[in-house]
Amino acid sequence: MDKPLDLLKRLGVETQPNGDLSVYSPIDGAPIATLQNASNGEIEDTIARAKAAFIKWRDVPAPRRGELVRLWGEELRKSKEDIAQLISLEVGKILQEGLGEVQEAIDMCDLCVGQSRQLFGRTITSERASHRIMEQWHPLGPVAIITAFNFPCAVFAWNAANALICGDSIILKPSEKSPLSGMATLQALLRAIDKFGSDAPGGLAQGIIGGVEQSKELVYSRDIALVSATGSTEMGRSVAVAVAERFGKRILELGGNNAMIVTEHANLELALRAIVFGAVGTAGQRCTSLRRLFIHHTQKDALIKKIKTAYASLNIGNPLEDQSLVGPLIDAPAYMMFKNGIQDALDEGGTLLIGGERVLEEQYPDGYYVSPAVFEMPSQTQAMKAECFTPILYIVPYEDFDQALEMHNDVPQGLSSCIISDNMREVERFISASGSDCGMANVNIGPSGAEIGGAFGGEKETGGDRETGSDAWKNYMRRTTNSINYSTDMPLAQGISFGD
Amino acid sequence: MDKPLDLLKRLGVETQPNGDLSVYSPIDGAPIATLQNASNGEIEDTIARAKAAFIKWRDVPAPRRGELVRLWGEELRKSKEDIAQLISLEVGKILQEGLGEVQEAIDMCDLCVGQSRQLFGRTITSERASHRIMEQWHPLGPVAIITAFNFPCAVFAWNAANALICGDSIILKPSEKSPLSGMATLQALLRAIDKFGSDAPGGLAQGIIGGVEQSKELVYSRDIALVSATGSTEMGRSVAVAVAERFGKRILELGGNNAMIVTEHANLELALRAIVFGAVGTAGQRCTSLRRLFIHHTQKDALIKKIKTAYASLNIGNPLEDQSLVGPLIDAPAYMMFKNGIQDALDEGGTLLIGGERVLEEQYPDGYYVSPAVFEMPSQTQAMKAECFTPILYIVPYEDFDQALEMHNDVPQGLSSCIISDNMREVERFISASGSDCGMANVNIGPSGAEIGGAFGGEKETGGDRETGSDAWKNYMRRTTNSINYSTDMPLAQGISFGD
Amino acid sequence: MDKPLDLLKRLGVETQPNGDLSVYSPIDGAPIATLQNASNGEIEDTIARAKAAFIKWRDVPAPRRGELVRLWGEELRKSKEDIAQLISLEVGKILQEGLGEVQEAIDMCDLCVGQSRQLFGRTITSERASHRIMEQWHPLGPVAIITAFNFPCAVFAWNAANALICGDSIILKPSEKSPLSGMATLQALLRAIDKFGSDAPGGLAQGIIGGVEQSKELVYSRDIALVSATGSTEMGRSVAVAVAERFGKRILELGGNNAMIVTEHANLELALRAIVFGAVGTAGQRCTSLRRLFIHHTQKDALIKKIKTAYASLNIGNPLEDQSLVGPLIDAPAYMMFKNGIQDALDEGGTLLIGGERVLEEQYPDGYYVSPAVFEMPSQTQAMKAECFTPILYIVPYEDFDQALEMHNDVPQGLSSCIISDNMREVERFISASGSDCGMANVNIGPSGAEIGGAFGGEKETGGDRETGSDAWKNYMRRTTNSINYSTDMPLAQGISFGD
Amino acid sequence: MDKPLDLLKRLGVETQPNGDLSVYSPIDGAPIATLQNASNGEIEDTIARAKAAFIKWRDVPAPRRGELVRLWGEELRKSKEDIAQLISLEVGKILQEGLGEVQEAIDMCDLCVGQSRQLFGRTITSERASHRIMEQWHPLGPVAIITAFNFPCAVFAWNAANALICGDSIILKPSEKSPLSGMATLQALLRAIDKFGSDAPGGLAQGIIGGVEQSKELVYSRDIALVSATGSTEMGRSVAVAVAERFGKRILELGGNNAMIVTEHANLELALRAIVFGAVGTAGQRCTSLRRLFIHHTQKDALIKKIKTAYASLNIGNPLEDQSLVGPLIDAPAYMMFKNGIQDALDEGGTLLIGGERVLEEQYPDGYYVSPAVFEMPSQTQAMKAECFTPILYIVPYEDFDQALEMHNDVPQGLSSCIISDNMREVERFISASGSDCGMANVNIGPSGAEIGGAFGGEKETGGDRETGSDAWKNYMRRTTNSINYSTDMPLAQGISFGD
Repeated sequence: MDKPLDLLKRLGVETQPNGDLSVYSPIDGAPIATLQNASNGEIEDTIARAKAAFIKWRDVPAPRRGELVRLWGEELRKSKEDIAQLISLEVGKILQEGLGEVQEAIDMCDLCVGQSRQLFGRTITSERASHRIMEQWHPLGPVAIITAFNFPCAVFAWNAANALICGDSIILKPSEKSPLSGMATLQALLRAIDKFGSDAPGGLAQGIIGGVEQSKELVYSRDIALVSATGSTEMGRSVAVAVAERFGKRILELGGNNAMIVTEHANLELALRAIVFGAVGTAGQRCTSLRRLFIHHTQKDALIKKIKTAYASLNIGNPLEDQSLVGPLIDAPAYMMFKNGIQDALDEGGTLLIGGERVLEEQYPDGYYVSPAVFEMPSQTQAMKAECFTPILYIVPYEDFDQALEMHNDVPQGLSSCIISDNMREVERFISASGSDCGMANVNIGPSGAEIGGAFGGEKETGGDRETGSDAWKNYMRRTTNSINYSTDMPLAQGISFGD
Repeated sequence: MDKPLDLLKRLGVETQPNGDLSVYSPIDGAPIATLQNASNGEIEDTIARAKAAFIKWRDVPAPRRGELVRLWGEELRKSKEDIAQLISLEVGKILQEGLGEVQEAIDMCDLCVGQSRQLFGRTITSERASHRIMEQWHPLGPVAIITAFNFPCAVFAWNAANALICGDSIILKPSEKSPLSGMATLQALLRAIDKFGSDAPGGLAQGIIGGVEQSKELVYSRDIALVSATGSTEMGRSVAVAVAERFGKRILELGGNNAMIVTEHANLELALRAIVFGAVGTAGQRCTSLRRLFIHHTQKDALIKKIKTAYASLNIGNPLEDQSLVGPLIDAPAYMMFKNGIQDALDEGGTLLIGGERVLEEQYPDGYYVSPAVFEMPSQTQAMKAECFTPILYIVPYEDFDQALEMHNDVPQGLSSCIISDNMREVERFISASGSDCGMANVNIGPSGAEIGGAFGGEKETGGDRETGSDAWKNYMRRTTNSINYSTDMPLAQGISFGD
Repeated sequence: MDKPLDLLKRLGVETQPNGDLSVYSPIDGAPIATLQNASNGEIEDTIARAKAAFIKWRDVPAPRRGELVRLWGEELRKSKEDIAQLISLEVGKILQEGLGEVQEAIDMCDLCVGQSRQLFGRTITSERASHRIMEQWHPLGPVAIITAFNFPCAVFAWNAANALICGDSIILKPSEKSPLSGMATLQALLRAIDKFGSDAPGGLAQGIIGGVEQSKELVYSRDIALVSATGSTEMGRSVAVAVAERFGKRILELGGNNAMIVTEHANLELALRAIVFGAVGTAGQRCTSLRRLFIHHTQKDALIKKIKTAYASLNIGNPLEDQSLVGPLIDAPAYMMFKNGIQDALDEGGTLLIGGERVLEEQYPDGYYVSPAVFEMPSQTQAMKAECFTPILYIVPYEDFDQALEMHNDVPQGLSSCIISDNMREVERFISASGSDCGMANVNIGPSGAEIGGAFGGEKETGGDRETGSDAWKNYMRRTTNSINYSTDMPLAQGISFGD
Repeated sequence: MDKPLDLLKRLGVETQPNGDLSVYSPIDGAPIATLQNASNGEIEDTIARAKAAFIKWRDVPAPRRGELVRLWGEELRKSKEDIAQLISLEVGKILQEGLGEVQEAIDMCDLCVGQSRQLFGRTITSERASHRIMEQWHPLGPVAIITAFNFPCAVFAWNAANALICGDSIILKPSEKSPLSGMATLQALLRAIDKFGSDAPGGLAQGIIGGVEQSKELVYSRDIALVSATGSTEMGRSVAVAVAERFGKRILELGGNNAMIVTEHANLELALRAIVFGAVGTAGQRCTSLRRLFIHHTQKDALIKKIKTAYASLNIGNPLEDQSLVGPLIDAPAYMMFKNGIQDALDEGGTLLIGGERVLEEQYPDGYYVSPAVFEMPSQTQAMKAECFTPILYIVPYEDFDQALEMHNDVPQGLSSCIISDNMREVERFISASGSDCGMANVNIGPSGAEIGGAFGGEKETGGDRETGSDAWKNYMRRTTNSINYSTDMPLAQGISFGD
C-alpha cells in the first residue's frame, strides 16, 4: 500500500492542506487529508454550471453519451486497484470488498453503454383514425448525488452512469466521512470527459465537498431536477419532504433492517455462508447487512453452533491485510451505537452468544474494531425494529412459517430479505404477494451483494425508490406522451361530439 | 331529464336529508341533495376495513380481479345515460361531455380487464451460475382516491380500475362540489361486486363524504399505501409533503397551464377547432384546458378573426339542452376567479377581444354562466403564469419558433401542450428533448381530450406523476426483485472472494 | 341436450343437406349434419374478399377493433352452453371441458380488448443529432386459421381475436372432423360484426369447409399473409415448406409428446391429480396430453398403485352425461392408432398396468370408447418417441435426475413438460437453460391446461411458434423501423464521412 | 497500405498457398490469397465441436458471456484500421465505408455487453391462486452465420455478438468472394476468447471456408439450431425451405429494392445528399442501396439537374485512395449484371440521364469500375421490380401521393424505404399502416445506413426476419413459459372441474 498522498495524487484527487474538513482512516484513526467545504456561493455556481451543461448535454445523442460512460469504465479499470485501496483506507472495508465495489462501478458503466441505445419508450395505438401515440423519454436536468460513507464509489457510479446516458448533468456530494473515494471516482470520470472531446460541456460532472449544510442547498434548489440520496431514514425523510415541497424528483435508498428466514428445509451450510457474509461483511455497515435471523426451532441449535464456530474464527483486523475478513467501524460514534445496541439487546432479554467486544484497542487506540455480536432474543423486540448500523445479529426462533413471515415484515424498513430453504412452497410463498414486503427478496442468498441487473431499493422507510437495474433509468428522465394527428380532421377521444 | 332524486335513486346513491353537506347544481344553483360528512371515527373504520380487504384481495388472482372490473364496466354501460345526466347536473358540463366522461370510465374498465393478465415484471439473467433473477409486481395496499369536481366519474374510474386489478382496496373521497357523480360511479362498482361473488371481500371499495379535513385524515394515515389526488397545485403540495413525510406513495395530477403554438405552417381550420374545444369545453374547467395561445405573427390576424367568429356563435346555456356548448362555471367563487382573471389581464395590458361577461344572469340568478374570454397580450405576463381555472384564453404572437418554445415552457406547470403545424421539423422539435417540457405534447390536436392508452399526467408543479395509460399501473403495485440461487454453492456478485 | 339440428340452428350454423362432407358424432357414430366442401373458385373468392377487407380494416383504429372482439366475447358468453354442447357432441370431450374451451375463447376476447390499446412498439434513441427512431407494429394481411379437431372453438378464437385486433382479416378452415363447432364460433363473431356496424368491412371473417385440398389452397396463396395451423407434425412440415417457399409467415402448433418427471421429492397426491387429468382428459387427444412419465425409482411403486386405483375408477362414457370423465376417441382411425400403440408398447417390452381395451362397444357399436392405458416400460423405447394421439401413458423409472432430464428431452417434439417436486433445486434446474427443452415447462402442474396469459407453443417438431399469450400478438403484425431526421443536415450512421 | 499478406498476418488470418479458393481484389483483379474449402468431414467435425461448446456455454452466466463480447470489441478497436483496409481491398468499398463497417461491429459489441444483462423475459400473473407464470429466454444452440460479400465484417459481428451473449456457439461461413475480412473479424474474436479464459469452451467460435456446397451442409444439419443468412432472394428461398423442412430456425436478410419518394414538400438539398450516398455508396452493392426514385412531377426537373451535377463530379477510383467515393464492382459477373441492367432499362423505354459506362478499364483491365447510372423511366417497369445489385438508379415521376405509394410497394422485396418531405402528413402517412410496406421506412434519410439500435430487416421476399436491434436478440434464444403451482391444491385453468 502506497502512502495515502501518493495514492491520491495518482488518482488525481486534489486536497486542501488547510481545508476545514479532515478525513481520517478508520483503520487507525490517522488523518488522510483535509478538504475544503464548499461555500454557498460555490454551490450556486456549481448548480448554474450544471444547468448550463444540461441544456447542451440533452441534445447529444444518447449512444454518444454512452461512449462517455464507456470511457469512464475504461478509466475505472485502469484505477481499479488504487481506488479499492483508497476505499479500504477511508471506509475500512476489506480490500476484496473494495475491489468488488469498483468492479460494480465498472459493470454499471458497461451496462449503461448498451442501455444508452435502449432508452425505450412506447409507440401506442390510437383510438382515432390517422392518429398515433408515442411515449418518449427525455433528459431530466441536473442530478445531485448524495452518497453515504459505506459505498463511496459504486453508489455514485450507479447514479452517475445512468444520469449521464440519460442526458443529465451531475453533481456529487460525497459523505464527509469518505469524500476521497468518491472524488477519486469522479476524477476518473473527468479523465474520461477529457478523452471524450468537446461534445461534453463544461460542468457536466462536478463535485461538492461538505456535510448536511451543503446537501441542503442542493436539496432545496429548484434547479436540481433529481436528488438521489443514500443514507439514514431520518436524512431521507427531510430530503423527501423538501423535494416534495418543490415538486422535485428524488431517489432515496435509506435504512434497511434486513432479515433471513432459515426454515426447517434449509441447507444449513448455505445458510451459514450467507449469514456470515451478510452480517459481518463491511463490518455490518452495508445498507443490506443481515440484522435479523429467524430460525425454525428444529434448526436453531445446529445452526447457532455453526455460527458460533464461524464467528470464533473470523479474522478481525486491518482491512488492507489479506487475511482480514472484518475491518473497523467507521468511527467513534459508530462504536457508541454498537455499544448501545449491545446494551439494548441485553436489556430486552437477549442472550449474547458471541462477540460484542471492542478488540485491537491497544494496537489501534483510535481505530474501532469490534467482534461481531450474535444475540438470541426471546422474541422480536423493540430494539430489533431500528437499524443499528453495526455488526449485531439478532436470532429469534420460530414455530411456523406464517409467524416467521409476520415477524419478518413487522419493522418499518423494507430493503432486503432472504429465505434459506430447499422447499419450493416456502420459497415461492416468501417471494409472493403475501410474503416478504421488501424491495428485494432473495432465495438461498443472503440479503446483501445485489447484482446490478435487478432493480435495487426498498419499500416503506427505505424510501420506495430504485436507483439501478431493470428500468430504473427512467428515474433519470422525464416521460412525454405524444398524440399525433396526421389527418385533416379532428375527431375527439371517447367519441365526443362537440358542435359538429 | 328526470328529477334529481329519481336519478339518484336509480343510481343507488343514498342521500342524508339532514346531512351537513349540501350539493347544488351549477345550472341554476338549486340544491340537489344533502350528504353527511364522515367523522374521524368513521374514516378510521373505513381505513381499517380497507386494510383488511386488501389482505384478502391481494391473494385473489389478478385475472380474476380483472373480472370484477369487467363487471363494473358492464354496470357503467347500463347506467351511462344516467350518470352522464348526473354529471351535467352536478358539474355543469354539457351532456356530450358527460357521456364522453362515462365512456372513458368504461374504456378504462375494458383496458384493465386485459391488463389484469399483463402486470408484467421481468426475468433477468444473473451473473452467477445457477442463479436467476426476476422482478415481480405485487399488490400495494389501500388506495385513497381524492378527486376534483370536474371529472367526478372518469378520474375515479381510472384510479379504481387500475387499483382493483393490481390487488388494492380503494377509498373514494370525491370533491365536496360534486360528490354525487362519484358516488354513483362507486355504486355501479358495488353492484358489480355483488355479482362478482364472495371472492371480493367487504371493504374492497368504499366512499367517504367530506372536504379538506376528511382528505387530510386519509393523507396522513400510514395505512393508506397510495394517495391519488387530483386538484390544485396548493392542495397537491400539501399532500406531497404529508405523504413524503411518512414514506407513502402518491399520484398527483395538479394544475395545468396548457398552451398551443400555432406556427406559420399551421392549418388554421384545424387550429380553430382545437382552440375552441380546448378553451371553452367544460367551460374552461378541465385540467387540460387551453389557456395560452402562441401564434406566429403571420397567422395572427387571420386566426384571431376565425376565433372571434367562432366564439361569437357559441351557445352558452343549460348543459342538459342539446344545443348548448358551454355550460356554467361550477360556483360563485369560480366566477370571482374569472372576474379577477379578466381584470388582471386588462391590468397587464391585455386587449379583450371577445367575451368576459356574465350571461344569463336573469334566467339563472344563482347560476354563473360566462362568455368565454379571449385576450391578446403584449407578452407572456405574470397573470398568464398562474392557472385561472375558467374560460380565459390569452393570445401572444411570436416571431420565431425558439421564442415561442421559450415562452411555452416558462410557467411553473407542465401538464399538456400542443402544436399546430404541417411542418415536420417544427413538429418533431416540439416533441423533442428541447421542445415542450410537459407530460403531454400533442401535434395537431388540442391539449385536452387525452386517450386512456397514453400515460396521463405532467411535470413540474403538475406533480410529475402518471395515473393511467402505458405502464402507469405500476404506481398501484410494489416491485420485488428476487435473486434465486439454485446451486449448492454461494458465489458472491462482482466476483468478491470472502473467506474462501 | 337438444337435438343437434336445433342446436345448430340456434347457433346460426347452416348445413347443406346434400353436402359432400358428413360430420359424425364420436359419441355414437351417428351423423350430425352434412356440409359442402369449398371449391377452388370459392376459395379464391374468399381470399379476394379477405384481402379487400384487410385494406379497410387495417385503417380502423386498434381500440375500435378491440370493441369488435369485446362484442364477440359477449356473443360467446350468451352461447357458451350451446357451443359447449356442440363441442361435446362433435369432438366427444366431456361437457366440463367443452365449457372450459368456450371460456378460454371468452377469456381470450377479454384479454384482446385490453391488448388492442397495447400493441406497443418502441421509441429508440438515435446516435445522430436531431434524429429519432421508432418501431411500429402494423397490420399484416389476411390470416388463414387451420384448426385441429380437438379444440375447434378455443384455438380459432385465440388466433382470430388476436388477428382482428391486430388489423387482419381472417379465414377459418376448421378440421373436417369437427367443422360445426368452429362454424358456430365463427357465427358468434358474425353476429358481433353485425352489431359492430359499418366499420367492419364485408369479408372480415369468413369460413371455408374442407380438408387437405382446401387447406393447401390457402397455404399456397400469396395473398394469405399468415397461416396459423394446428395439427400433426407431418401436416405442419408441409405447411412450413410451402409457406417458406413463398416467404409467407406461419404459426405452427404441432405434435407434442409431453412428459412429467415425478422426483423423489414429489407430493404424490399432486402428481396423481396432474397425471390423471393430463393423460385421460379429452381422452388423451390434447396436444398437451401427458404421454410419458418418468418416476424416481423410490416413488414408483407407490405412485403406480395410486394411478391404478384412480384409473380403475374412471367413468368412461357419453361425454354429455355428468358423471363421465372420459369420452370416446374421435373416430375409427384413432382407435386403430390406439390399438397399434398398445401393441407397439407390448412389443417393446412394456408391461400393461391397466386399461388398453375398447369398452362400451355394445352400447355404442360406432363409438370408440377405450379404457386409458398405462404401461411400465423398461426404458424410453422407440414407440415412445412418436406422438400416439390417444390415452396411452408410458412410465419409465429413473435413478438420477440428469438421466430423467436426458430421457425427457430425447424426443423430436418439444411442446409441454412438467415436474412434480417440492425441491426448489430440482424445480429450478428443470426450468433452466439445461432443463426441459420444451416451450412450456410447468412445476407441480400437469402439461396441459395452459392459461392464455403465457405464450403457448413449443420447440423442435412442435413448430417453434407461439400463437397466444405474452407478446404472441406480434405474429399477427408486421414491424416497421422508422428513422426520422428532423434536422436540415444529414449525418451518416457509424460516423461515416461521405464526400463532405 | 501494407502488402496484403502483411496485413493478413497482422490480423492473424491464415492462408493456404495451395488452397482451392482464390481470393481476388476487385480493385485490380489481382489475387490476394488462396484458401482451402472445407470438406464434408471437416464441416461435420466443426458442427460437432459447436454442439459440444454450446452445452457448456449455455451454462455460463449471460453477463459473463457479455464480457467476452466486450473483449471482442476491444480487439476490433485495436484492429479497426487494418480490417477496414482489408475490406476495401477485398470488397472494393472506399476506406471511409470500411471504417464505418468496423465501427458498426464495435458498436454492436458495446450494445451487446449491456444487452447481456437485459435478456428480459416476463413474469406474468396467473388466474389460479398460489400460481405464478414466467417466461424465460434460454440459449438456443449452434448458429451458422452465412454472410454476403458486401458486409463481411459487420453482418458477422451483428449475428455473432448477439449469438454469443445469448449463449450460442457460432460458425461463420463467409462469402467466397470476401472470406478474408470475415476471417479477420473472427480472428479478433478468437484473440478475445484467449484473453477471456477457460469459461469459453473450445469450438465456441469457428469458421468454414467455402461456397454453396459448404453452406448447404450447414443449412441441412439438424444440429444447427439457427441459420442466419444474408444474400440473394433465391439463396434465401432455398435456405428457408430447407430449414423449414427440419423445423429449424432462420434469420434471412435477402434482396432489397429500395425506393425513395421525393414529394412536392421535399427539401431538395437533403434529397440530393440522401440519393447520392444511397445510390452510389458501396457502388450500389448494399442490400439497402437506393434503386428506385419517385419524384413529384413539380420537383422532377430541379432534382434531376442536381443529381446530374452531383453524379458528374463523383470520384470513381481506387477505394483505398482518399478522394475516391465510388470503388469497383465486386467482379466480372457483377459488371455483366450492370450491363444487362442498363440494356433492360433502355429496352423498357428508359432514358439514360448519366453514367452507365465502364471506366478506368485501361488502368485496371481486371477491375470493373463503372459510372453509376441514372435513368428516367416512363413508369415502373418490369426490370425495376428485380434487384439489380449495381449502381443503377431509376427515376419515375408521379402526380399524387397515393400513386407514388402504390408504385413504391409494388415490388416483391420489402427491405428499406424512405420519404423526403417537410410535410408532416405525408411523412406520417408514409410510415403508417397504409404506407410503406418495408421493414424500414425512413424520413429525410436515405434507405441505407441503418443504426444498430433499430430492428434491421425486411418484409416479403426480403425474408421477414430481423437480425439486430430492438428485441432481435430473441431470435438467438428459445422461449420457455413456466407455470408454477406452489399451493398443495391443483385447480385447472378456465375453471374446469374434473372429477372433483
